[in-house]
Amino acid sequence: MQEESGLEATPLRYSGVATLLRRPLVNDPSGVDIALIGVPYDGATENRPGARHGPREVRNMSSFTRSVHHVTRINPYELCNIADMGDVNFLNPFDLQQCFADITHFYRNICAAGAVPLSVGGDHSISLPILRAIAAEQPVGMVHFDAHTDTSDHELGNKYTHGTQFRRAMEEGLLDPKRTIQIGIRGAQNSEESWHGSEDAGIRVIYMEEFTALGIEATLDEIRTVVGQEPTYVSFDIDSLDPAFAPGTGTPEIGGLTTIQAQALLRGLAGLNLIAGDVVEVSPPFDPSGNTALVGASLLYEIACVLSDAVSRNNAAQ
Amino acid sequence: MQEESGLEATPLRYSGVATLLRRPLVNDPSGVDIALIGVPYDGATENRPGARHGPREVRNMSSFTRSVHHVTRINPYELCNIADMGDVNFLNPFDLQQCFADITHFYRNICAAGAVPLSVGGDHSISLPILRAIAAEQPVGMVHFDAHTDTSDHELGNKYTHGTQFRRAMEEGLLDPKRTIQIGIRGAQNSEESWHGSEDAGIRVIYMEEFTALGIEATLDEIRTVVGQEPTYVSFDIDSLDPAFAPGTGTPEIGGLTTIQAQALLRGLAGLNLIAGDVVEVSPPFDPSGNTALVGASLLYEIACVLSDAVSRNNAAQ
Amino acid sequence: MQEESGLEATPLRYSGVATLLRRPLVNDPSGVDIALIGVPYDGATENRPGARHGPREVRNMSSFTRSVHHVTRINPYELCNIADMGDVNFLNPFDLQQCFADITHFYRNICAAGAVPLSVGGDHSISLPILRAIAAEQPVGMVHFDAHTDTSDHELGNKYTHGTQFRRAMEEGLLDPKRTIQIGIRGAQNSEESWHGSEDAGIRVIYMEEFTALGIEATLDEIRTVVGQEPTYVSFDIDSLDPAFAPGTGTPEIGGLTTIQAQALLRGLAGLNLIAGDVVEVSPPFDPSGNTALVGASLLYEIACVLSDAVSRNNAAQ
Amino acid sequence: MQEESGLEATPLRYSGVATLLRRPLVNDPSGVDIALIGVPYDGATENRPGARHGPREVRNMSSFTRSVHHVTRINPYELCNIADMGDVNFLNPFDLQQCFADITHFYRNICAAGAVPLSVGGDHSISLPILRAIAAEQPVGMVHFDAHTDTSDHELGNKYTHGTQFRRAMEEGLLDPKRTIQIGIRGAQNSEESWHGSEDAGIRVIYMEEFTALGIEATLDEIRTVVGQEPTYVSFDIDSLDPAFAPGTGTPEIGGLTTIQAQALLRGLAGLNLIAGDVVEVSPPFDPSGNTALVGASLLYEIACVLSDAVSRNNAAQ
Amino acid sequence: MQEESGLEATPLRYSGVATLLRRPLVNDPSGVDIALIGVPYDGATENRPGARHGPREVRNMSSFTRSVHHVTRINPYELCNIADMGDVNFLNPFDLQQCFADITHFYRNICAAGAVPLSVGGDHSISLPILRAIAAEQPVGMVHFDAHTDTSDHELGNKYTHGTQFRRAMEEGLLDPKRTIQIGIRGAQNSEESWHGSEDAGIRVIYMEEFTALGIEATLDEIRTVVGQEPTYVSFDIDSLDPAFAPGTGTPEIGGLTTIQAQALLRGLAGLNLIAGDVVEVSPPFDPSGNTALVGASLLYEIACVLSDAVSRNNAAQ
Amino acid sequence: MQEESGLEATPLRYSGVATLLRRPLVNDPSGVDIALIGVPYDGATENRPGARHGPREVRNMSSFTRSVHHVTRINPYELCNIADMGDVNFLNPFDLQQCFADITHFYRNICAAGAVPLSVGGDHSISLPILRAIAAEQPVGMVHFDAHTDTSDHELGNKYTHGTQFRRAMEEGLLDPKRTIQIGIRGAQNSEESWHGSEDAGIRVIYMEEFTALGIEATLDEIRTVVGQEPTYVSFDIDSLDPAFAPGTGTPEIGGLTTIQAQALLRGLAGLNLIAGDVVEVSPPFDPSGNTALVGASLLYEIACVLSDAVSRNNAAQ
Repeated sequence: MQEESGLEATPLRYSGVATLLRRPLVNDPSGVDIALIGVPYDGATENRPGARHGPREVRNMSSFTRSVHHVTRINPYELCNIADMGDVNFLNPFDLQQCFADITHFYRNICAAGAVPLSVGGDHSISLPILRAIAAEQPVGMVHFDAHTDTSDHELGNKYTHGTQFRRAMEEGLLDPKRTIQIGIRGAQNSEESWHGSEDAGIRVIYMEEFTALGIEATLDEIRTVVGQEPTYVSFDIDSLDPAFAPGTGTPEIGGLTTIQAQALLRGLAGLNLIAGDVVEVSPPFDPSGNTALVGASLLYEIACVLSDAVSRNNAAQ
Repeated sequence: MQEESGLEATPLRYSGVATLLRRPLVNDPSGVDIALIGVPYDGATENRPGARHGPREVRNMSSFTRSVHHVTRINPYELCNIADMGDVNFLNPFDLQQCFADITHFYRNICAAGAVPLSVGGDHSISLPILRAIAAEQPVGMVHFDAHTDTSDHELGNKYTHGTQFRRAMEEGLLDPKRTIQIGIRGAQNSEESWHGSEDAGIRVIYMEEFTALGIEATLDEIRTVVGQEPTYVSFDIDSLDPAFAPGTGTPEIGGLTTIQAQALLRGLAGLNLIAGDVVEVSPPFDPSGNTALVGASLLYEIACVLSDAVSRNNAAQ
Repeated sequence: MQEESGLEATPLRYSGVATLLRRPLVNDPSGVDIALIGVPYDGATENRPGARHGPREVRNMSSFTRSVHHVTRINPYELCNIADMGDVNFLNPFDLQQCFADITHFYRNICAAGAVPLSVGGDHSISLPILRAIAAEQPVGMVHFDAHTDTSDHELGNKYTHGTQFRRAMEEGLLDPKRTIQIGIRGAQNSEESWHGSEDAGIRVIYMEEFTALGIEATLDEIRTVVGQEPTYVSFDIDSLDPAFAPGTGTPEIGGLTTIQAQALLRGLAGLNLIAGDVVEVSPPFDPSGNTALVGASLLYEIACVLSDAVSRNNAAQ
Repeated sequence: MQEESGLEATPLRYSGVATLLRRPLVNDPSGVDIALIGVPYDGATENRPGARHGPREVRNMSSFTRSVHHVTRINPYELCNIADMGDVNFLNPFDLQQCFADITHFYRNICAAGAVPLSVGGDHSISLPILRAIAAEQPVGMVHFDAHTDTSDHELGNKYTHGTQFRRAMEEGLLDPKRTIQIGIRGAQNSEESWHGSEDAGIRVIYMEEFTALGIEATLDEIRTVVGQEPTYVSFDIDSLDPAFAPGTGTPEIGGLTTIQAQALLRGLAGLNLIAGDVVEVSPPFDPSGNTALVGASLLYEIACVLSDAVSRNNAAQ
Repeated sequence: MQEESGLEATPLRYSGVATLLRRPLVNDPSGVDIALIGVPYDGATENRPGARHGPREVRNMSSFTRSVHHVTRINPYELCNIADMGDVNFLNPFDLQQCFADITHFYRNICAAGAVPLSVGGDHSISLPILRAIAAEQPVGMVHFDAHTDTSDHELGNKYTHGTQFRRAMEEGLLDPKRTIQIGIRGAQNSEESWHGSEDAGIRVIYMEEFTALGIEATLDEIRTVVGQEPTYVSFDIDSLDPAFAPGTGTPEIGGLTTIQAQALLRGLAGLNLIAGDVVEVSPPFDPSGNTALVGASLLYEIACVLSDAVSRNNAAQ
Repeated sequence: MQEESGLEATPLRYSGVATLLRRPLVNDPSGVDIALIGVPYDGATENRPGARHGPREVRNMSSFTRSVHHVTRINPYELCNIADMGDVNFLNPFDLQQCFADITHFYRNICAAGAVPLSVGGDHSISLPILRAIAAEQPVGMVHFDAHTDTSDHELGNKYTHGTQFRRAMEEGLLDPKRTIQIGIRGAQNSEESWHGSEDAGIRVIYMEEFTALGIEATLDEIRTVVGQEPTYVSFDIDSLDPAFAPGTGTPEIGGLTTIQAQALLRGLAGLNLIAGDVVEVSPPFDPSGNTALVGASLLYEIACVLSDAVSRNNAAQ
């Protein structure tokens, strides 16, 4: 074969097999610092499905991502060995509890090998089985971008949906509400339960309107105050963005974040003790333009930058 | 039939027959406080038609609306009896004057029953026959969101179009220009007539650039100063929004409002003496994604919140 | 209110609340001959979801349907009282067995009132709980249009999916394979199981290629021979059509039926002892143009014509 | 300027200003044999509007058309001087009778100069004012491709719509029903009036099903028998095609013609005494892909081939 | 890692990294019987570009393909070792001659290893550098499906475009015109050169109209007669299909093949001495629905079936 | 012909042949002050092509533009004679150097006649051959809006691409880096070369983040300081905007300018010594909604306003 062939050498963005952030596709987590993982599951969605196709299209749109960050000049791929480790396999996609078990099992293997997971959903319920793998020993803090708190007790008669996963995570001791902050919350609800679910638990909730009033810097101060220097998870629900920027999602709420705000907030997480993250709820069928997946890939890159910085610091400290 | 069936009990958003704001469909206005009404008419459009399909798709996207407002915690459906009263029927949709008469006749019946109308267009010309029904006794003030003043004397040789309806309303004594304020005006014109039509009449015109400079709060102060505590109509033309947020409209003008600005402005109308409102110019054929109709439904809900508050106060005062 | 208002009198197709085939929306099945029912369930889909939105959009596109058939001059609405009875409600949309029970319960009530159900899915799994209601006493024959046989034993480790429902129906004694015929079967499979599942059971399978060779009339002869004059169900999976005609579906297979072929085949069912039917697998998110839902509504009307003829004959015979 | 500039020399299809069939844009009909004319009017549409944008997009998609026909090897631009003469101007687009007068006036000038008009609509109502100009002295025959007969007496309370124009044309003595044939008729109606309107007048109606049974050649024989060698108009409603081929139209009816059938039928008109033609009901907003306009442009070229042949024979005979 | 992970074991179609026909991605051609190769080049396109994105989207839509053919019951993956060998790399995508050299170099390596290439374009010009690799020793015959002959001498002043590659291939002694047959040719041209280019060279040209008259079986007879049992290349330009079936292409021509006709023709190539093939001109930007890429993947599978049969026979004979 | 016909008198926006900013189409530059020119070339694009279709669609969407500016009340068509002079013709669109020569030749003729060019691309490489015509005698300054600096030394092995044209322009003495300012720069890169290419040359680079911090007015101050009162070119790459506002472009980068910011910045150029401008990288295939072309046309109008002001001042000074 040509010497210049192979994924790494490919200069054309649209060429070759699509992988997350254009990283090499590997099956063995040994030596991988950050494992990019797709979780094509949307069986816990209560309205518009389609997030199962998220990983596939974020891979596709990863063709637009590059390496050196224009603000920080960080190249995450120089700081860490970052690989696309494929998607979680599901033995029975119709069985939510089995799927959650499959996810947790997959992530335990990743963590056991010393890799840090950065995930692409899938609906937001996947954060729960991921946390079961990575927060098994002690609860983590979380910086959570979303239009919804996802701390309801149940939804449509079900305890496990994409609107309840963080209530469950708190109950299971995986998530420390005192070290959790939610940003971008908005949109009418049929009851106040989902807001109370966060506030009563001690989570710091920054509604969209408070965020607008605070601005980026004060919000970042608040984030740092809440999560401190303990291990922290980053969860980015694409519906935190306004549907003008990310129409392809299951539960759009108007009046949301812009992409430039999201980028600034994610970049501002530099210096935190980040230990994993996810980008969820990209539902390609509701955005034929592909732009939502482009936004998803671009924000995945932003998280990869701050996460690789944290991982390389942690690795250096060991 | 199952006890749990019926529109009210339906928990799934995508299920059942689509109604405006998911309200019950009723034919008799007795006991209705706020009547949601579709006006599927676009015969006065001078460029891209399609707003006749607005009510249908706003119904469809109403599936995303819920009851309790995340900022004010108002549930408009607890404050008022709000119903979908269907669409105005047109005996001859090709005859503009007959259609206007049909609209006025329909709204007079609604008003006679004591219900307050909240309308979904249709093109913006429908505001004139609506005002003929609700402002028959005395002129009303108006908070008007739009890229265009709609106060031209004529358009394409016609006195009755979606660019002249408020000039006519002033001439007919339905609209008090001194108590009228227009927000978001922008976009080149082939003559200055439409701007002079407002300014010469004494309407307060806040061009997009002045709005940007003032910000939300100062604009709201100006609104309150202009309209005072007399009866006030709210008219929201979806083209006041930037086409990134609402591409599905007949006369898009770039450089417009964001949805979060629109929400803040509409919420800021709380406390005014609102007596009716409309959301117009949603033209679904120009936005296959359905997002414009989602925006329309979401802003209809915002108006329902401030209108239900005003109606319940008025009812209590009687 | 205006005398000319109300759903029945509405002359404008795009006006008013959208119902299936523009029929009145009723809650009580008494006196209804044919009950149009939406079943917004897609929890048994193994690839692209979205059929849960099928009933909503078929209602929307029903605005294009009218009453008198151009070939047969039948007006089904004169032959029978046909009503839109809304959608099946689901207590827990995440629990397949509960959803199936909800469907069966809903249909038993319809049948108990003497109405004949004509359904809009939803994924194809819904035919099983429907058959449990209507074929409880004796197995029915079936004319089944589809790219797939849906007689696999299991799919992705699950016994109940939209690829296994007719195997289950045979096992449960609801479907008589000797009186069942499948038309339009095509597309590669990962095993021959789904084809054997039909052939071994004695179902007459007309693959797409045989249909092309036979033509319409010989195929209709074969249908009549197979199902005879005993009670027969009609199940129309929209993926029997070529994706050029119906792209909005979960499992498209190229090389399928045209709409004119489908119309001719459905019209040719006149004279059979039809006792119920369904149109399934319309998945609107995969067709922003809305054409698939238009096709769905148009074929629903075709079935309504032959079904109303059968029902009126049956009613007359009683 | 460069010698190679100018519309005629442009070799790139996507370059330059878009004109109908890439013909030169001229204002003076002198010396023009066939005048391509846009009629951007859709004020007589009873459901989905948008055909006013038809001429613009057919111009755009004309970039795909070329000169030499692959079957007949006719180059219509060598047989005749064919020019794009722009669009009819409307003094008041909201006034149907004035618009009809504007159309008739425009076409009288074209005809007076000796040019033969070939038109792009606009909704189908435009055929009436066109016939008023070209059939003023004696009624013409017509080959009419459509899903609908357009011979109703009235529609939605109006005598002049896109469903009545040929009834009016017969009443006004412009159209000879005995020399008129309609092909592709189909789709349910709310009454049989539109079918009776044709059959009672003596028009030969070939429903879609009869066409399918007859095939191309027998249909062409029937056409030739009906229209003979007297002056004949060709009217092609794009909704005669199946919506899979032409989704962008106001009143789609499934089960229609394919493009290859339409091409064969239009080519088969060679030898008739064709004196004008139109392609109508292309409604671009309902087909973002642009394919319907491509079909419209391609069939316009087919008509230009047979029309140029007829015109050159007529010119030679004079 | 989980034992059940890995591309081969993945049961979910939408899961994992997308490869051509869901085959394993390999870099080394040793032991590969049929090499699936993407050629993301569209620099020789004279109108609408975008075919460079073809391989990516055909990979994406390969998720719908499966293994066992429903007519022949062939499983090509049991007959041959078939692998996705990635895309050709281009050192300078702006330099056509360099790109052609890169393609030829890549294919020579594939052939040298004993693998048979089955390609996905890219524009149709890629067939020339592919033939330079595989027909270096003796000219091949070809079964060519296309709306255009691609045998012009030059296009827009260029000798190497996607309209001239087969003229060049004949001149270079790669293609034997006496053993070449072109099917589906249609659409006007600005000169007769491209048709003469085939006919004068002795290629058998079956225009669309002749194909319609002949039907599938007679066309297959003609194919067999022309190409005989000598080595034969299969080239499938997606624009041979009607744009209703494959809108996403650069030069659509209405009146083309249906997918069911294309499938039957490709299946009918069984028994020929096929030595390689391609599917070209899928241009995803012009079909946001993704259906054209689905058609491309499905027809790639059809070719894989007949090619694997030929390859396994050839291998057995050695 | 009717007196009221002709381009100038056409009152309907959607009527007639589409020209840039609805200006008359002329071939002779004599007497033209500002020449609107399309440059349909995208052969230097390294990822998604399609900008060759930009001029065509900006013409189409120019139907929304009007004459009098709502802020400045300038009517550029009263200040200057502005005409659509068609598109640059390309003798061989596959030969980049020949295309550049064609462009330069075309613009030299325009300039020789005393007209000022305002261009619509095409990809951004076209600015180089344009500058060769207009900056032949002395280097110009530039206000450049873009996500990318376009000052790389080479891209994919090529010296002339849409990422290198301003490096070449500096090398050729056409562009004065000290009088050049770039606004909106953002997005990761695979190396820092493109940023260094600007900064090392002395270009003032305002990254997106600095712009956000500075705001409109301070940025305009900086622009005025950098370019002064010497001749200045304005180059607007549509990808400077966020993809929510302009998705139809080849290299989208999230986190960009809003349209209202772009409008304010362009308006703020009033008073500068502007001598030409362009709007580039509108790629219609990636935005079926047409909104990107609408934005392109609207910003072209904004540039026409400030450019006509500068030209009329320059003309008056002569």
